[in-house]
Amino acid sequence: MRLRNKPWAAPLIAAHPEYISVRPEGMPGHWQEHFAQDQPLFLEVGSGKGQFITEMAKQHPDQNFIALEIQEVAIAYILRKQVALKLPNLHLILGDGADLTTYFAPGEVSGLFLNFSDPWPKSRHEKRRLTYQSFLAQYQAILPQGGRLQFKTDNQGLFEYSLVSMNNFGLHFDLVALDLHHDSRVADNVETEYEHKFASRGGRIYELVATFPKG
Amino acid sequence: MRLRNKPWAAPLIAAHPEYISVRPEGMPGHWQEHFAQDQPLFLEVGSGKGQFITEMAKQHPDQNFIALEIQEVAIAYILRKQVALKLPNLHLILGDGADLTTYFAPGEVSGLFLNFSDPWPKSRHEKRRLTYQSFLAQYQAILPQGGRLQFKTDNQGLFEYSLVSMNNFGLHFDLVALDLHHDSRVADNVETEYEHKFASRGGRIYELVATFPKG
Repeated sequence: MRLRNKPWAAPLIAAHPEYISVRPEGMPGHWQEHFAQDQPLFLEVGSGKGQFITEMAKQHPDQNFIALEIQEVAIAYILRKQVALKLPNLHLILGDGADLTTYFAPGEVSGLFLNFSDPWPKSRHEKRRLTYQSFLAQYQAILPQGGRLQFKTDNQGLFEYSLVSMNNFGLHFDLVALDLHHDSRVADNVETEYEHKFASRGGRIYELVATFPKG
Repeated sequence: MRLRNKPWAAPLIAAHPEYISVRPEGMPGHWQEHFAQDQPLFLEVGSGKGQFITEMAKQHPDQNFIALEIQEVAIAYILRKQVALKLPNLHLILGDGADLTTYFAPGEVSGLFLNFSDPWPKSRHEKRRLTYQSFLAQYQAILPQGGRLQFKTDNQGLFEYSLVSMNNFGLHFDLVALDLHHDSRVADNVETEYEHKFASRGGRIYELVATFPKG
Protein backbone atom coordinates (compact mmCIF):
# COMPACT_ATOMS: atom_id res chain seq x y z
CA MET A 1 0.00 0.00 0.00
CA ARG A 2 1.49 3.28 -1.11
CA LEU A 3 0.69 6.23 1.18
CA ARG A 4 0.47 9.92 0.40
CA ASN A 5 3.42 11.93 1.65
CA LYS A 6 2.97 13.82 4.94
CA PRO A 7 5.02 16.89 5.83
CA TRP A 8 5.16 15.89 9.51
CA ALA A 9 6.77 12.48 8.81
CA ALA A 10 10.46 13.39 8.37
CA PRO A 11 10.65 15.85 11.33
CA LEU A 12 8.92 13.34 13.61
CA ILE A 13 11.41 10.61 12.65
CA ALA A 14 14.36 12.98 13.17
CA ALA A 15 13.03 13.91 16.63
CA HIS A 16 12.81 10.35 17.99
CA PRO A 17 16.06 8.41 17.60
CA GLU A 18 15.14 6.56 20.82
CA TYR A 19 12.27 4.82 18.97
CA ILE A 20 13.43 4.66 15.37
CA SER A 21 16.64 3.86 13.50
CA VAL A 22 17.09 5.07 9.94
CA ARG A 23 18.91 2.72 7.55
CA PRO A 24 21.05 1.59 10.46
CA GLU A 25 24.52 0.25 9.83
CA GLY A 26 27.00 -0.82 12.43
CA MET A 27 24.17 -2.12 14.66
CA PRO A 28 24.43 -5.91 14.04
CA GLY A 29 24.52 -7.75 17.34
CA HIS A 30 23.46 -4.68 19.35
CA TRP A 31 19.68 -4.47 18.92
CA GLN A 32 18.94 -5.63 22.44
CA GLU A 33 20.40 -2.29 23.66
CA HIS A 34 17.27 -0.57 22.33
CA PHE A 35 14.95 -2.47 24.65
CA ALA A 36 14.18 -2.40 28.36
CA GLN A 37 14.92 -6.10 28.64
CA ASP A 38 17.11 -8.60 26.84
CA GLN A 39 14.59 -11.12 25.46
CA PRO A 40 13.83 -12.91 22.16
CA LEU A 41 13.61 -10.53 19.20
CA PHE A 42 10.96 -10.75 16.48
CA LEU A 43 11.01 -8.79 13.24
CA GLU A 44 8.19 -7.81 10.91
CA VAL A 45 9.36 -7.01 7.39
CA GLY A 46 6.97 -4.49 5.86
CA SER A 47 4.96 -3.23 8.85
CA GLY A 48 2.65 -0.84 7.03
CA LYS A 49 0.93 1.37 9.59
CA GLY A 50 1.91 -1.03 12.37
CA GLN A 51 -1.34 -2.37 13.84
CA PHE A 52 0.03 -5.92 13.87
CA ILE A 53 3.42 -5.22 15.44
CA THR A 54 2.14 -2.82 18.12
CA GLU A 55 -0.57 -5.31 19.09
CA MET A 56 2.01 -8.11 19.23
CA ALA A 57 4.24 -5.97 21.43
CA LYS A 58 1.32 -5.30 23.77
CA GLN A 59 0.29 -8.98 23.95
CA HIS A 60 3.84 -10.30 24.41
CA PRO A 61 5.75 -8.16 26.94
CA ASP A 62 8.26 -11.02 27.26
CA GLN A 63 9.41 -10.57 23.66
CA ASN A 64 11.03 -7.69 21.78
CA PHE A 65 9.73 -6.51 18.41
CA ILE A 66 11.13 -4.55 15.52
CA ALA A 67 8.94 -3.02 12.81
CA LEU A 68 10.82 -2.64 9.53
CA GLU A 69 9.25 -0.50 6.83
CA ILE A 70 10.68 0.99 3.65
CA GLN A 71 8.07 3.79 3.35
CA GLU A 72 8.84 6.86 5.42
CA VAL A 73 5.19 7.86 5.78
CA ALA A 74 4.10 4.40 6.92
CA ILE A 75 6.81 4.08 9.57
CA ALA A 76 5.99 7.62 10.71
CA TYR A 77 2.43 6.46 11.45
CA ILE A 78 3.84 3.66 13.61
CA LEU A 79 6.19 6.10 15.28
CA ARG A 80 3.32 8.43 16.11
CA LYS A 81 1.60 5.50 17.87
CA GLN A 82 4.79 4.54 19.69
CA VAL A 83 5.39 8.11 20.91
CA ALA A 84 2.01 7.79 22.63
CA LEU A 85 2.29 4.15 23.70
CA LYS A 86 5.96 4.12 24.74
CA LEU A 87 6.06 0.31 24.49
CA PRO A 88 9.36 -0.78 26.06
CA ASN A 89 9.63 -3.80 23.74
CA LEU A 90 9.11 -2.10 20.37
CA HIS A 91 11.64 -0.43 18.10
CA LEU A 92 11.26 0.81 14.53
CA ILE A 93 13.54 0.74 11.52
CA LEU A 94 13.15 2.81 8.37
CA GLY A 95 14.99 0.54 5.99
CA ASP A 96 14.98 -2.03 3.20
CA GLY A 97 14.16 -5.73 3.56
CA ALA A 98 16.88 -6.44 1.01
CA ASP A 99 19.50 -5.08 3.46
CA LEU A 100 18.66 -7.26 6.48
CA THR A 101 22.13 -8.75 6.69
CA THR A 102 23.63 -5.27 7.05
CA TYR A 103 21.22 -4.49 9.89
CA PHE A 104 21.30 -7.73 11.88
CA ALA A 105 23.92 -10.23 13.03
CA PRO A 106 23.54 -13.94 12.18
CA GLY A 107 20.93 -15.50 14.47
CA GLU A 108 20.08 -12.17 16.13
CA VAL A 109 16.37 -12.41 15.19
CA SER A 110 14.36 -15.30 16.68
CA GLY A 111 11.39 -15.14 14.33
CA LEU A 112 10.06 -13.20 11.39
CA PHE A 113 6.66 -11.97 10.18
CA LEU A 114 5.59 -11.15 6.63
CA ASN A 115 2.09 -9.70 6.45
CA PHE A 116 0.27 -8.82 3.24
CA SER A 117 3.38 -8.02 1.28
CA ASP A 118 3.08 -6.42 -2.13
CA PRO A 119 2.19 -9.33 -4.49
CA TRP A 120 4.12 -7.96 -7.49
CA PRO A 121 1.98 -10.10 -9.81
CA LYS A 122 3.97 -9.61 -13.00
CA SER A 123 6.58 -12.29 -13.69
CA ARG A 124 9.25 -9.71 -14.42
CA HIS A 125 8.84 -8.39 -10.85
CA GLU A 126 9.28 -11.80 -9.20
CA LYS A 127 12.55 -10.69 -7.59
CA ARG A 128 10.73 -7.97 -5.65
CA ARG A 129 8.38 -10.38 -3.87
CA LEU A 130 9.39 -10.77 -0.23
CA THR A 131 9.24 -14.56 -0.61
CA TYR A 132 11.69 -14.66 -3.53
CA GLN A 133 14.78 -16.80 -2.98
CA SER A 134 17.14 -13.85 -2.33
CA PHE A 135 14.88 -12.53 0.45
CA LEU A 136 14.58 -16.00 1.97
CA ALA A 137 18.38 -16.16 2.03
CA GLN A 138 18.45 -12.84 3.92
CA TYR A 139 15.94 -14.16 6.46
CA GLN A 140 17.91 -17.36 6.92
CA ALA A 141 21.09 -15.37 7.54
CA ILE A 142 19.65 -13.41 10.47
CA LEU A 143 17.60 -16.25 12.03
CA PRO A 144 18.97 -19.11 14.09
CA GLN A 145 18.75 -22.68 12.79
CA GLY A 146 15.10 -23.66 12.96
CA GLY A 147 14.09 -19.97 13.00
CA ARG A 148 10.41 -19.40 12.31
CA LEU A 149 8.76 -17.47 9.51
CA GLN A 150 5.04 -16.60 9.62
CA PHE A 151 3.59 -15.41 6.34
CA LYS A 152 0.07 -14.10 5.75
CA THR A 153 -1.55 -12.82 2.59
CA ASP A 154 -4.93 -12.43 0.95
CA ASN A 155 -3.37 -12.69 -2.51
CA GLN A 156 -3.94 -16.13 -4.02
CA GLY A 157 -1.19 -15.77 -6.63
CA LEU A 158 1.38 -14.65 -4.08
CA PHE A 159 0.45 -17.52 -1.77
CA GLU A 160 0.75 -20.11 -4.56
CA TYR A 161 4.11 -18.63 -5.52
CA SER A 162 5.34 -18.50 -1.95
CA LEU A 163 4.42 -22.12 -1.17
CA VAL A 164 6.56 -23.20 -4.12
CA SER A 165 9.37 -20.73 -3.42
CA MET A 166 9.63 -21.58 0.28
CA ASN A 167 9.44 -25.31 -0.41
CA ASN A 168 12.15 -25.06 -3.05
CA PHE A 169 14.35 -23.09 -0.65
CA GLY A 170 14.15 -25.99 1.79
CA LEU A 171 11.87 -24.49 4.41
CA HIS A 172 10.04 -26.99 6.63
CA PHE A 173 6.28 -26.34 6.66
CA ASP A 174 4.61 -26.41 10.07
CA LEU A 175 1.16 -25.04 9.21
CA VAL A 176 -0.75 -24.17 6.06
CA ALA A 177 -4.09 -22.41 6.53
CA LEU A 178 -6.14 -21.76 3.40
CA ASP A 179 -8.86 -19.86 5.26
CA LEU A 180 -7.20 -18.52 8.38
CA HIS A 181 -10.19 -16.68 9.81
CA HIS A 182 -12.26 -19.88 9.85
CA ASP A 183 -9.51 -22.20 11.05
CA SER A 184 -10.14 -23.93 14.37
CA ARG A 185 -6.42 -24.69 14.76
CA VAL A 186 -5.46 -21.01 15.00
CA ALA A 187 -6.66 -19.22 18.14
CA ASP A 188 -4.24 -16.32 18.55
CA ASN A 189 -4.27 -14.55 15.18
CA VAL A 190 -3.34 -10.87 15.41
CA GLU A 191 -4.76 -8.86 12.52
CA THR A 192 -3.24 -6.08 10.44
CA GLU A 193 -5.36 -3.04 9.48
CA TYR A 194 -5.68 -4.32 5.94
CA GLU A 195 -6.49 -7.88 7.05
CA HIS A 196 -9.28 -6.68 9.30
CA LYS A 197 -10.97 -4.74 6.51
CA PHE A 198 -10.47 -7.42 3.88
CA ALA A 199 -11.68 -10.31 6.04
CA SER A 200 -14.69 -8.38 7.30
CA ARG A 201 -15.83 -8.12 3.68
CA GLY A 202 -15.62 -11.93 3.46
CA GLY A 203 -12.18 -12.25 1.87
CA ARG A 204 -10.04 -15.32 2.42
CA ILE A 205 -6.75 -15.03 4.32
CA TYR A 206 -3.91 -17.51 3.74
CA GLU A 207 -1.15 -18.35 6.22
CA LEU A 208 2.03 -20.38 6.09
CA VAL A 209 4.19 -21.05 9.13
CA ALA A 210 7.55 -22.60 8.35
CA THR A 211 10.99 -23.06 9.86
CA PHE A 212 14.37 -22.68 8.23
CA PRO A 213 16.48 -25.78 7.83
CA LYS A 214 19.78 -26.21 9.57
CA GLY A 215 22.30 -24.11 7.62
CA MET B 1 -16.90 -42.53 -2.57
CA ARG B 2 -18.41 -45.81 -1.43
CA LEU B 3 -20.50 -47.57 -4.09
CA ARG B 4 -23.37 -50.03 -3.70
CA ASN B 5 -22.44 -53.60 -4.45
CA LYS B 6 -23.31 -54.94 -7.92
CA PRO B 7 -23.83 -58.64 -8.61
CA TRP B 8 -22.24 -58.35 -12.06
CA ALA B 9 -18.94 -56.95 -10.76
CA ALA B 10 -17.11 -60.11 -9.62
CA PRO B 11 -18.04 -62.26 -12.66
CA LEU B 12 -17.00 -59.45 -15.05
CA ILE B 13 -13.62 -59.12 -13.32
CA ALA B 14 -13.09 -62.91 -13.43
CA ALA B 15 -13.90 -62.96 -17.15
CA HIS B 16 -11.28 -60.35 -18.20
CA PRO B 17 -7.79 -61.15 -16.95
CA GLU B 18 -6.45 -59.48 -20.11
CA TYR B 19 -7.63 -56.08 -18.78
CA ILE B 20 -7.50 -56.45 -15.02
CA SER B 21 -5.14 -57.93 -12.45
CA VAL B 22 -6.45 -58.82 -8.99
CA ARG B 23 -4.08 -58.16 -6.07
CA PRO B 24 -1.18 -59.05 -8.33
CA GLU B 25 1.99 -60.44 -6.86
CA GLY B 26 5.04 -61.60 -8.72
CA MET B 27 4.47 -58.90 -11.39
CA PRO B 28 7.09 -56.29 -10.41
CA GLY B 29 9.15 -55.31 -13.42
CA HIS B 30 6.73 -56.98 -15.88
CA TRP B 31 3.87 -54.48 -16.31
CA GLN B 32 4.93 -53.44 -19.79
CA GLU B 33 3.91 -56.95 -20.93
CA HIS B 34 0.26 -55.92 -20.50
CA PHE B 35 0.47 -53.16 -23.08
CA ALA B 36 0.69 -53.02 -26.87
CA GLN B 37 3.83 -50.88 -26.63
CA ASP B 38 6.68 -50.42 -24.19
CA GLN B 39 6.34 -46.75 -23.16
CA PRO B 40 6.34 -44.65 -19.94
CA LEU B 41 3.90 -45.97 -17.34
CA PHE B 42 1.61 -43.75 -15.25
CA LEU B 43 -0.40 -44.90 -12.26
CA GLU B 44 -3.53 -43.49 -10.69
CA VAL B 45 -4.02 -44.55 -7.08
CA GLY B 46 -7.76 -44.60 -6.35
CA SER B 47 -9.37 -44.38 -9.79
CA GLY B 48 -13.02 -44.37 -8.74
CA LYS B 49 -15.15 -44.98 -11.80
CA GLY B 50 -12.23 -44.18 -14.09
CA GLN B 51 -13.24 -41.12 -16.09
CA PHE B 52 -9.85 -39.49 -15.51
CA ILE B 53 -7.64 -42.46 -16.37
CA THR B 54 -9.59 -43.55 -19.46
CA GLU B 55 -9.54 -39.97 -20.76
CA MET B 56 -5.80 -39.74 -20.08
CA ALA B 57 -5.24 -43.01 -21.95
CA LYS B 58 -7.21 -41.67 -24.92
CA GLN B 59 -5.37 -38.34 -24.98
CA HIS B 60 -1.89 -39.85 -24.54
CA PRO B 61 -1.50 -42.92 -26.77
CA ASP B 62 2.30 -42.63 -26.29
CA GLN B 63 1.98 -43.42 -22.58
CA ASN B 64 0.72 -46.45 -20.65
CA PHE B 65 -1.73 -46.12 -17.76
CA ILE B 66 -2.73 -48.25 -14.82
CA ALA B 67 -5.89 -47.62 -12.80
CA LEU B 68 -5.56 -48.91 -9.25
CA GLU B 69 -8.70 -49.12 -7.15
CA ILE B 70 -9.45 -50.90 -3.88
CA GLN B 71 -13.24 -51.10 -4.40
CA GLU B 72 -14.38 -54.02 -6.51
CA VAL B 73 -17.51 -52.26 -7.76
CA ALA B 74 -15.63 -49.12 -8.79
CA ILE B 75 -12.96 -50.99 -10.75
CA ALA B 76 -15.72 -53.08 -12.35
CA TYR B 77 -17.22 -49.84 -13.73
CA ILE B 78 -13.86 -48.98 -15.27
CA LEU B 79 -13.54 -52.50 -16.62
CA ARG B 80 -16.96 -52.28 -18.27
CA LYS B 81 -15.75 -49.15 -20.08
CA GLN B 82 -12.48 -50.79 -21.07
CA VAL B 83 -14.24 -53.90 -22.44
CA ALA B 84 -16.00 -51.49 -24.82
CA LEU B 85 -13.06 -49.14 -25.48
CA LYS B 86 -10.26 -51.74 -25.69
CA LEU B 87 -7.64 -49.05 -25.08
CA PRO B 88 -4.26 -50.66 -25.81
CA ASN B 89 -2.50 -48.47 -23.23
CA LEU B 90 -4.76 -49.04 -20.21
CA HIS B 91 -4.66 -51.80 -17.61
CA LEU B 92 -6.55 -52.12 -14.32
CA ILE B 93 -5.58 -53.38 -10.89
CA LEU B 94 -7.97 -54.34 -8.11
CA GLY B 95 -5.63 -53.76 -5.19
CA ASP B 96 -4.49 -51.65 -2.26
CA GLY B 97 -2.43 -48.45 -2.46
CA ALA B 98 -0.62 -49.59 0.67
CA ASP B 99 0.80 -52.57 -1.25
CA LEU B 100 2.38 -50.70 -4.18
CA THR B 101 5.85 -52.03 -3.49
CA THR B 102 4.58 -55.60 -3.83
CA TYR B 103 2.99 -54.75 -7.20
CA PHE B 104 5.72 -52.63 -8.81
CA ALA B 105 9.50 -52.72 -9.13
CA PRO B 106 11.60 -49.71 -8.06
CA GLY B 107 11.36 -47.00 -10.71
CA GLU B 108 8.84 -48.96 -12.81
CA VAL B 109 6.24 -46.16 -12.68
CA SER B 110 7.16 -42.81 -14.30
CA GLY B 111 4.47 -40.69 -12.68
CA LEU B 112 1.58 -40.91 -10.28
CA PHE B 113 -1.88 -39.36 -9.93
CA LEU B 114 -3.96 -38.92 -6.79
CA ASN B 115 -7.42 -37.54 -7.50
CA PHE B 116 -10.00 -36.65 -4.86
CA SER B 117 -8.81 -39.18 -2.34
CA ASP B 118 -10.87 -39.81 0.77
CA PRO B 119 -10.00 -36.92 3.13
CA TRP B 120 -10.24 -38.98 6.34
CA PRO B 121 -10.76 -35.75 8.33
CA LYS B 122 -10.41 -37.20 11.81
CA SER B 123 -6.91 -37.00 13.30
CA ARG B 124 -6.99 -40.64 14.34
CA HIS B 125 -7.41 -41.62 10.67
CA GLU B 126 -4.39 -39.61 9.46
CA LYS B 127 -2.55 -42.80 8.51
CA ARG B 128 -5.27 -43.68 5.99
CA ARG B 129 -4.83 -40.47 3.96
CA LEU B 130 -3.08 -41.20 0.67
CA THR B 131 -0.66 -38.33 1.34
CA TYR B 132 0.47 -39.69 4.72
CA GLN B 133 4.20 -40.32 5.05
CA SER B 134 3.94 -44.12 4.66
CA PHE B 135 2.08 -43.77 1.34
CA LEU B 136 4.58 -41.20 0.11
CA ALA B 137 7.34 -43.69 0.89
CA GLN B 138 5.51 -46.30 -1.24
CA TYR B 139 5.25 -43.85 -4.13
CA GLN B 140 8.91 -42.92 -3.86
CA ALA B 141 9.87 -46.61 -3.95
CA ILE B 142 8.17 -47.27 -7.30
CA LEU B 143 9.03 -43.96 -9.00
CA PRO B 144 12.40 -43.02 -10.43
CA GLN B 145 14.44 -40.18 -8.91
CA GLY B 146 12.62 -36.98 -9.79
CA GLY B 147 9.39 -38.95 -10.36
CA ARG B 148 6.29 -36.77 -10.55
CA LEU B 149 3.20 -36.77 -8.34
CA GLN B 150 0.06 -34.86 -9.33
CA PHE B 151 -2.49 -34.44 -6.56
CA LYS B 152 -5.97 -32.92 -6.86
CA THR B 153 -8.65 -32.45 -4.25
CA ASP B 154 -11.61 -30.27 -3.42
CA ASN B 155 -11.10 -30.85 0.29
CA GLN B 156 -9.46 -27.84 1.94
CA GLY B 157 -8.37 -29.76 5.04
CA LEU B 158 -6.80 -32.57 3.02
CA PHE B 159 -4.97 -30.06 0.83
CA GLU B 160 -3.61 -28.15 3.83
CA TYR B 161 -2.51 -31.45 5.37
CA SER B 162 -0.96 -32.70 2.14
CA LEU B 163 1.06 -29.53 1.50
CA VAL B 164 2.65 -29.96 4.93
CA SER B 165 3.05 -33.73 4.64
CA MET B 166 4.62 -33.62 1.18
CA ASN B 167 6.90 -30.74 2.14
CA ASN B 168 8.03 -32.54 5.28
CA PHE B 169 8.73 -35.69 3.24
CA GLY B 170 11.12 -33.68 1.09
CA LEU B 171 9.07 -33.42 -2.10
CA HIS B 172 10.00 -30.55 -4.42
CA PHE B 173 6.95 -28.45 -5.32
CA ASP B 174 6.58 -27.54 -8.99
CA LEU B 175 3.06 -26.08 -9.03
CA VAL B 176 0.46 -25.12 -6.45
CA ALA B 177 -2.98 -24.15 -7.79
CA LEU B 178 -5.52 -22.92 -5.24
CA ASP B 179 -8.29 -22.59 -7.81
CA LEU B 180 -7.40 -24.96 -10.61
CA HIS B 181 -10.42 -24.36 -12.81
CA HIS B 182 -9.65 -20.63 -12.99
CA ASP B 183 -5.88 -20.95 -13.37
CA SER B 184 -4.43 -19.57 -16.58
CA ARG B 185 -1.23 -21.60 -16.08
CA VAL B 186 -3.04 -24.94 -16.44
CA ALA B 187 -4.41 -25.66 -19.91
CA ASP B 188 -4.65 -29.46 -20.03
CA ASN B 189 -6.61 -30.43 -16.92
CA VAL B 190 -8.45 -33.75 -17.28
CA GLU B 191 -11.45 -33.97 -14.96
CA THR B 192 -12.74 -36.83 -12.84
CA GLU B 193 -16.52 -37.46 -12.65
CA TYR B 194 -16.63 -36.00 -9.17
CA GLU B 195 -14.50 -32.99 -10.10
CA HIS B 196 -16.77 -32.12 -13.00
CA LYS B 197 -19.89 -32.12 -10.81
CA PHE B 198 -18.25 -30.31 -7.92
CA ALA B 199 -16.63 -27.58 -10.02
CA SER B 200 -19.77 -26.99 -12.09
CA ARG B 201 -21.52 -26.09 -8.83
CA GLY B 202 -18.82 -23.47 -8.21
CA GLY B 203 -16.56 -25.50 -5.90
CA ARG B 204 -12.84 -24.80 -5.70
CA ILE B 205 -10.36 -27.43 -6.87
CA TYR B 206 -6.82 -27.55 -5.47
CA GLU B 207 -3.78 -29.06 -7.20
CA LEU B 208 -0.21 -29.77 -6.21
CA VAL B 209 2.41 -31.05 -8.64
CA ALA B 210 5.63 -32.17 -7.03
CA THR B 211 8.67 -34.33 -7.71
CA PHE B 212 10.40 -36.78 -5.42
CA PRO B 213 13.91 -35.97 -4.28
CA LYS B 214 16.86 -38.10 -5.21
CA GLY B 215 16.73 -41.17 -2.98
